Amino acid sequence: MTGTIACYGELLLRLGAPGRQRLLQSPQLDVHIGGAEANVGVSLAQLGHPVRMLGRVADNPLGQAALGELRRHGVQTASVQAVPGRMGLYFLTTGALQRPSEVVYDRADSVFARGTPADYDWPALLDGARWLHLSGVTPALGPQVAETALDAARAARQAGLGVSFDGNFRPKLWEAWGGDAPGILRQLMEQADVLFADHRDMAVVLSQDFAQAEGPARNRAAAAAAFEAFPHLRYMACTLRTTYSVDHHGLGAMLMTRDGGCLEAPTRELPGVVDRIGGGDAFAAGILHGLLRALPDAETLAFGLAAGCLKHSIEGDFNLASEAEIRALMVEGRLDVRR
Amino acid sequence: MTGTIACYGELLLRLGAPGRQRLLQSPQLDVHIGGAEANVGVSLAQLGHPVRMLGRVADNPLGQAALGELRRHGVQTASVQAVPGRMGLYFLTTGALQRPSEVVYDRADSVFARGTPADYDWPALLDGARWLHLSGVTPALGPQVAETALDAARAARQAGLGVSFDGNFRPKLWEAWGGDAPGILRQLMEQADVLFADHRDMAVVLSQDFAQAEGPARNRAAAAAAFEAFPHLRYMACTLRTTYSVDHHGLGAMLMTRDGGCLEAPTRELPGVVDRIGGGDAFAAGILHGLLRALPDAETLAFGLAAGCLKHSIEGDFNLASEAEIRALMVEGRLDVRR
Amino acid sequence: MTGTIACYGELLLRLGAPGRQRLLQSPQLDVHIGGAEANVGVSLAQLGHPVRMLGRVADNPLGQAALGELRRHGVQTASVQAVPGRMGLYFLTTGALQRPSEVVYDRADSVFARGTPADYDWPALLDGARWLHLSGVTPALGPQVAETALDAARAARQAGLGVSFDGNFRPKLWEAWGGDAPGILRQLMEQADVLFADHRDMAVVLSQDFAQAEGPARNRAAAAAAFEAFPHLRYMACTLRTTYSVDHHGLGAMLMTRDGGCLEAPTRELPGVVDRIGGGDAFAAGILHGLLRALPDAETLAFGLAAGCLKHSIEGDFNLASEAEIRALMVEGRLDVRR
Amino acid sequence: MTGTIACYGELLLRLGAPGRQRLLQSPQLDVHIGGAEANVGVSLAQLGHPVRMLGRVADNPLGQAALGELRRHGVQTASVQAVPGRMGLYFLTTGALQRPSEVVYDRADSVFARGTPADYDWPALLDGARWLHLSGVTPALGPQVAETALDAARAARQAGLGVSFDGNFRPKLWEAWGGDAPGILRQLMEQADVLFADHRDMAVVLSQDFAQAEGPARNRAAAAAAFEAFPHLRYMACTLRTTYSVDHHGLGAMLMTRDGGCLEAPTRELPGVVDRIGGGDAFAAGILHGLLRALPDAETLAFGLAAGCLKHSIEGDFNLASEAEIRALMVEGRLDVRR
Amino acid sequence: MTGTIACYGELLLRLGAPGRQRLLQSPQLDVHIGGAEANVGVSLAQLGHPVRMLGRVADNPLGQAALGELRRHGVQTASVQAVPGRMGLYFLTTGALQRPSEVVYDRADSVFARGTPADYDWPALLDGARWLHLSGVTPALGPQVAETALDAARAARQAGLGVSFDGNFRPKLWEAWGGDAPGILRQLMEQADVLFADHRDMAVVLSQDFAQAEGPARNRAAAAAAFEAFPHLRYMACTLRTTYSVDHHGLGAMLMTRDGGCLEAPTRELPGVVDRIGGGDAFAAGILHGLLRALPDAETLAFGLAAGCLKHSIEGDFNLASEAEIRALMVEGRLDVRR
Amino acid sequence: MTGTIACYGELLLRLGAPGRQRLLQSPQLDVHIGGAEANVGVSLAQLGHPVRMLGRVADNPLGQAALGELRRHGVQTASVQAVPGRMGLYFLTTGALQRPSEVVYDRADSVFARGTPADYDWPALLDGARWLHLSGVTPALGPQVAETALDAARAARQAGLGVSFDGNFRPKLWEAWGGDAPGILRQLMEQADVLFADHRDMAVVLSQDFAQAEGPARNRAAAAAAFEAFPHLRYMACTLRTTYSVDHHGLGAMLMTRDGGCLEAPTRELPGVVDRIGGGDAFAAGILHGLLRALPDAETLAFGLAAGCLKHSIEGDFNLASEAEIRALMVEGRLDVRR
Repeated sequence: MTGTIACYGELLLRLGAPGRQRLLQSPQLDVHIGGAEANVGVSLAQLGHPVRMLGRVADNPLGQAALGELRRHGVQTASVQAVPGRMGLYFLTTGALQRPSEVVYDRADSVFARGTPADYDWPALLDGARWLHLSGVTPALGPQVAETALDAARAARQAGLGVSFDGNFRPKLWEAWGGDAPGILRQLMEQADVLFADHRDMAVVLSQDFAQAEGPARNRAAAAAAFEAFPHLRYMACTLRTTYSVDHHGLGAMLMTRDGGCLEAPTRELPGVVDRIGGGDAFAAGILHGLLRALPDAETLAFGLAAGCLKHSIEGDFNLASEAEIRALMVEGRLDVRR
Repeated sequence: MTGTIACYGELLLRLGAPGRQRLLQSPQLDVHIGGAEANVGVSLAQLGHPVRMLGRVADNPLGQAALGELRRHGVQTASVQAVPGRMGLYFLTTGALQRPSEVVYDRADSVFARGTPADYDWPALLDGARWLHLSGVTPALGPQVAETALDAARAARQAGLGVSFDGNFRPKLWEAWGGDAPGILRQLMEQADVLFADHRDMAVVLSQDFAQAEGPARNRAAAAAAFEAFPHLRYMACTLRTTYSVDHHGLGAMLMTRDGGCLEAPTRELPGVVDRIGGGDAFAAGILHGLLRALPDAETLAFGLAAGCLKHSIEGDFNLASEAEIRALMVEGRLDVRR
Repeated sequence: MTGTIACYGELLLRLGAPGRQRLLQSPQLDVHIGGAEANVGVSLAQLGHPVRMLGRVADNPLGQAALGELRRHGVQTASVQAVPGRMGLYFLTTGALQRPSEVVYDRADSVFARGTPADYDWPALLDGARWLHLSGVTPALGPQVAETALDAARAARQAGLGVSFDGNFRPKLWEAWGGDAPGILRQLMEQADVLFADHRDMAVVLSQDFAQAEGPARNRAAAAAAFEAFPHLRYMACTLRTTYSVDHHGLGAMLMTRDGGCLEAPTRELPGVVDRIGGGDAFAAGILHGLLRALPDAETLAFGLAAGCLKHSIEGDFNLASEAEIRALMVEGRLDVRR
Repeated sequence: MTGTIACYGELLLRLGAPGRQRLLQSPQLDVHIGGAEANVGVSLAQLGHPVRMLGRVADNPLGQAALGELRRHGVQTASVQAVPGRMGLYFLTTGALQRPSEVVYDRADSVFARGTPADYDWPALLDGARWLHLSGVTPALGPQVAETALDAARAARQAGLGVSFDGNFRPKLWEAWGGDAPGILRQLMEQADVLFADHRDMAVVLSQDFAQAEGPARNRAAAAAAFEAFPHLRYMACTLRTTYSVDHHGLGAMLMTRDGGCLEAPTRELPGVVDRIGGGDAFAAGILHGLLRALPDAETLAFGLAAGCLKHSIEGDFNLASEAEIRALMVEGRLDVRR
Repeated sequence: MTGTIACYGELLLRLGAPGRQRLLQSPQLDVHIGGAEANVGVSLAQLGHPVRMLGRVADNPLGQAALGELRRHGVQTASVQAVPGRMGLYFLTTGALQRPSEVVYDRADSVFARGTPADYDWPALLDGARWLHLSGVTPALGPQVAETALDAARAARQAGLGVSFDGNFRPKLWEAWGGDAPGILRQLMEQADVLFADHRDMAVVLSQDFAQAEGPARNRAAAAAAFEAFPHLRYMACTLRTTYSVDHHGLGAMLMTRDGGCLEAPTRELPGVVDRIGGGDAFAAGILHGLLRALPDAETLAFGLAAGCLKHSIEGDFNLASEAEIRALMVEGRLDVRR
Repeated sequence: MTGTIACYGELLLRLGAPGRQRLLQSPQLDVHIGGAEANVGVSLAQLGHPVRMLGRVADNPLGQAALGELRRHGVQTASVQAVPGRMGLYFLTTGALQRPSEVVYDRADSVFARGTPADYDWPALLDGARWLHLSGVTPALGPQVAETALDAARAARQAGLGVSFDGNFRPKLWEAWGGDAPGILRQLMEQADVLFADHRDMAVVLSQDFAQAEGPARNRAAAAAAFEAFPHLRYMACTLRTTYSVDHHGLGAMLMTRDGGCLEAPTRELPGVVDRIGGGDAFAAGILHGLLRALPDAETLAFGLAAGCLKHSIEGDFNLASEAEIRALMVEGRLDVRR
């Protein structure tokens, strides 16, 4: 099975203060390209999968730069539409010690957010693909985009593609237009074979409370509810993050299957985090890689967690780690300089 | 007379490619703060005038940075309102040779553009001021802002302040909302004591054709028409720009008075332009400085032109040249290193 | 009570090697503006207080840059005198691991250090102020400056202002001119309502030995002696710093009152220090904020310590943290990215 | 006819001193990707043509970066082989005034130069292509590469593709292995439909002396000889460069046809050159664009020259100018900021 | 005894990605000069010893830059030959968290590696020297260089110089030409008074297995074997490195003498490593400093370890720490800012 | 004759705004090392002469950096004394268009300026030298330094060294301490074999007016007077600078001999000046090179002017041009990229 993986979502420009400076403390911004689904796409392309981005960018140098960056990392961009309008932006201040990193979004009214169902011919866009990946950020952008995302998920399922969905619940975006987050997310999750979500997402979507359980058990309970609610669902995966300081995290992960299987990967220490943005997307891509390559579940989970951890050592939203690097971390290779 | 000069207009963040690179050719942006009226305000503050900025910025780190930069250069910012929303941006690629510089605007729906007449208490905002400066970019942002600009100009005149207006005709902005540019600009110019405009602006506003004249004579004809149309108008000034290449300009200037007076300052060569943005605003500020200090008209014009020329040697939108530097250029001081 | 806080002290330019490089290892220097009292002033301005800087700078681009930076962060600079001469400088190499950061001072003969009592009209300079802040660095610069500082403190007390004094004992500066540090510091402390000092400062000033006590008890004993010696004194505060490595500190704090009250805030871990310079000044400003806002003492101490800790995450001498950020740290908010 | 354009040649990393610095005057290098044929390919991709790169790169991060940069600019890289070995490098010092720019080559023994005929399956590599572009740098790298280039040109002709060849005569490279430059270049030119060469190249290849003619006439004479010698040749084009100073060039161009047609485009002034490297490749790509789009010859020449000129305003080896920018220059559009 | 220390080895240019970026993630490289023996030489020059570099560099700006950098740090370069050819390079990606740093070597066919015994007149080159330092990287470059290194070591011994040798076993380099590493290294070690090596090196050279011992005991066993095998050997020293993460190492050290003496210096924690490259060379230089200054062995070992640790806080391959800084670390001086 | 050239003078750190920015417009400074005599020394070392710097630097990282930079460029620094104190600094804003470059000196009380005759043992310092170079900046620093310079010049003459002196008249420095510039400079010039000075210098020193002549004739008249006044004088040389704009200069030169010989080198155009600082010193070094190598006078003058012109294309105070580059300019070699 060698079909393409399609990722539908918004491309954003990240404009970040250099190093650990405050935003505009000095008059420079470092630029990276990102977006939850694009991040997954770039990871999968790094891992050798054919990946096709779907969506809309501005037909100006910013949009071209975003597409160029995706192509640079091996993602096909020919199906992304370039139309008049603006690119979504976000401004990032990377924190330190106990000063958290801070995102100032400036993404309203982007060309992506203004897209409507009529802008997308899903059967054509998904032609030749084997998989579709989406996330909960997309439907949060407005009713038209939400409708479009649902169209995409349904078209994928109908065409026999696998579907993965990353919860990525962002209350602020939903509140901005009063969208019915639980209702819409539920419809999307109903189409999913693979769900990246934890008990917090499930509590929102299923209006259930998993607080009686504790720690990993909460996710297990949430997974049980999810498998019951969503008949197509085969896998649910999530990370468990501990934040000792802004620069020092711990990251564990879980992978749960319809048959009640539940694997836990022990927490890795991440002291000296370089860039935490995109860590969840790197994990998701790692899990998808395992599933698409039909690795054993335990290996899939280990691969996903190692991928997610390595992302924290890499600047920018993309996980540029190679499969060899991820596998080296899985086997706890030596950490001294490689010559 | 020691009152404050009030400048009402939008503050923008300029995000520019480093040096002569294409936008996002490398992943960095240099940030400057600008805006036609703020540029005039910073120039006047550098020249020793008390200056007060009026308008609205986003209540986020970007808006704070914009205000901080104005304060740094001596402009009072206490009357600028910080409200939720986004800052207007523009992306700049500085050209070279025969590749023109290019601006990509991303300023729609900024907090400034969303301001309404009700947001401004003009008598209070103008309290203690002796002068109000506005430009034609502001009313071009939409009907509410146009109304607000008119309110400001009328309130200033009513309170006995001098009023200056810089034409700054931007067709694209007017077209975006179908605004009646001639009608609105005419109402604003009616309030002006000093107008920065040339025959092209006047052709638009007065629906007159000055094409029968040539060169400077066109501006003289336009001025005659302006003085007839606008009873409060005392001065009209403009620059005459020749663009040999993107990096090599010639800049002359004219100053015309109600009594038919017309002074012309001969063209200065500007080979090796560093940054052309804000050249017109620097000129306007130089002229206002001369008028506010009651310099002889010829000195005022020479000062304005020298200020405008010096701006081309300075990075960013602001003319950071001191009065001493401008005066040194007026007397053709030596150009070797000053130790 | 809404009067201004006056800060009298020297503005310095910090010229620092980039990142963790040795000084001039590569041919670039990063510039920040600092000075013990200015640091306190900028912090208080960030926290919403009106702040006025007092002192002298060079009437050249360096002095103007220093004032511009203060204004940028909201401090009023109109009362700072710009006179011919040089700015005080210091060159900084930021250390790492077990290589300590290193300061090379080049501040002798600065315009500030050459100021004399006759240069300052204290009643006018303090007009409209409610508080004066000084530190022990200032009198250490020479007999004339010491006399000036005493004049300032006495004028403030006489005019009914509150006075705060930060010990900042620098033996090298005193030795350079053979000044009577204990005598002069004592006279200054006599004017203080609030003292930032610990047992080491008090040992010098009161020629007393607090070595019989241990740990926090030493500071308590020193405070008791201070309250006895200085009748106006209401508060004494200090930090307790542990330095595990150059990049990893622990920071605790104490606040002691005339009635024998002594609050201790437990040590916070600071792994991955970004910039330690100005940490004490940030703490002092936090305490002053609490006192000026009449917060409960415990909240004041917690606020001061949180402010001091946050400073360690911020480049430069100034604590640019907002009140919201400081309060978030006080309640141990989550440390993951804020979107 | 919508087939792909294939470019066979070496990808090089350019490691350049920043700005106008001497090499390693400060310890930084700016990196660009280049190579005569890749430069042509990127230009054509910018102009909307499907382009496929052919050749070999190192299977390490340097080779991946080179391919990534090509993809970023729209060139297909799937047919480039990544094999163990080293990338060709060149170190660039950009000159100024009368100090010429200087290239230090470090390209011996690169994976490309070590390629042999057996490494390339030309029918497969050229499958679906309509055109092949090569240059004289490639056969200069050694006998195996020369043989390979000949294989490529012959395979292209046999498969009915158009062939273009850029003389790019580099004596030093030929001398390094004692290659028969005239013989080999002649065989390559025999396959060409389009030749980028002037009288100097032809003098070498045809062992003829065109010195009796002067100025453009020399190139005309050389073209006449070329059309006689090479039966497939349809077009010969070249630039005429005047170098007033390192930063100020003049650039004209000629386009000659088999029927004796000879068009000359007048010299454009280029004062303030940003980056001269790749100017000839940009010209060649512009000419090819005109031919592939079947533009009138005069328009083709004007397009080629405008493209070549614009390249001088752009950092790096690639001409990133768009068709719209090139056409704007052809019609002498205004040079002031485009908003 | 005040003779010069001669260091024979290759000078390399390190081209590194900025900060923690991937190689060419952004288009810049930071350049440092290095090489195992040059690193030792620079350290010793920093510590006050006269040092002479021996070897060959390219007679181009890269070679000149390498020599210039050595001179800058006090090493004499007049005896290094500048000849046509290329400089050895290595590309460095500095890792983070669990992503190891990675070196891509591009050093084949460098002018140094192409040097032959006939290029070196050892009696002249060693004239006036008291010591010769070499390392195992040099003979690994090829049979001619290996022969040259042996010539050097024998000439040194014959002339009564002390000889130190750093194992630096690099299997990949030996494999590239099938060199007899054990045989050649053994011959070199036979000439050594001081050996920097551990049980792994000795296992290779003596074809002995020290696996029966554990931890430091393995090195002790290896030393015993070494002293038996090499009659001139007086000291063997090595570090013991623990790598908790890429940024957090522990470093201990051992110094063993012919009389069976074995000193161990306890492990120091290095959290927040800035640059690990050259740590072993810094240690070697520290040990040599102690021996050349005839310090007590324990002080020598402590000095060497402190030097090695400090290197990890310094960017680049050279240990630029001064003797005062190293001694401050030995006595565990305070780590707060030094003013 | 292969003796060393001794240069006695102050080493300064230049702290410059990046590119064409205003000083501290952005918070970075680029650092270069300079000083009139050191500039000459570095040029001569680049040209293959043994050069020894004499003077005093601060015994801190700044002084060490200054010495390191001299060594990097081949100047011997072992005779420079490192003593407690401060380094002389200057802050540079590089101008553009009609905005002149601006130097803010901060060099008072430097360790060099505080040196006294007793600090220098001239016979020892000049031992083995064949030439001494000084300039008029040095005696302008104060009476002690002036005395020291005179000691040096006399000791050199007495020891049979050649002496060159560059006028470098800086009125501000002399006025600062009321020094008798004409008297002291005259005494220094009396020792000179070679004088770099023009009619303005001679007017000051000889209290003569050369205004009756015009253009080059003025310098000829001044030379005649100089040869009459100074019996040891053999050569007088000067440049003739025209400043069309800050970035575009013209540079000619004259060389006059005791026998009345007067050579004029025609003006070279320098459009696009990179860095004008040190242009005169580069010229002086070029002339000295010609004299020391006993070139014909016309070649010496041409070499000196070409050296001076090339300096304008090089960042920093030093002329890093090689002899080959200077000679290439003398023969008007081609200006296109050298590969």
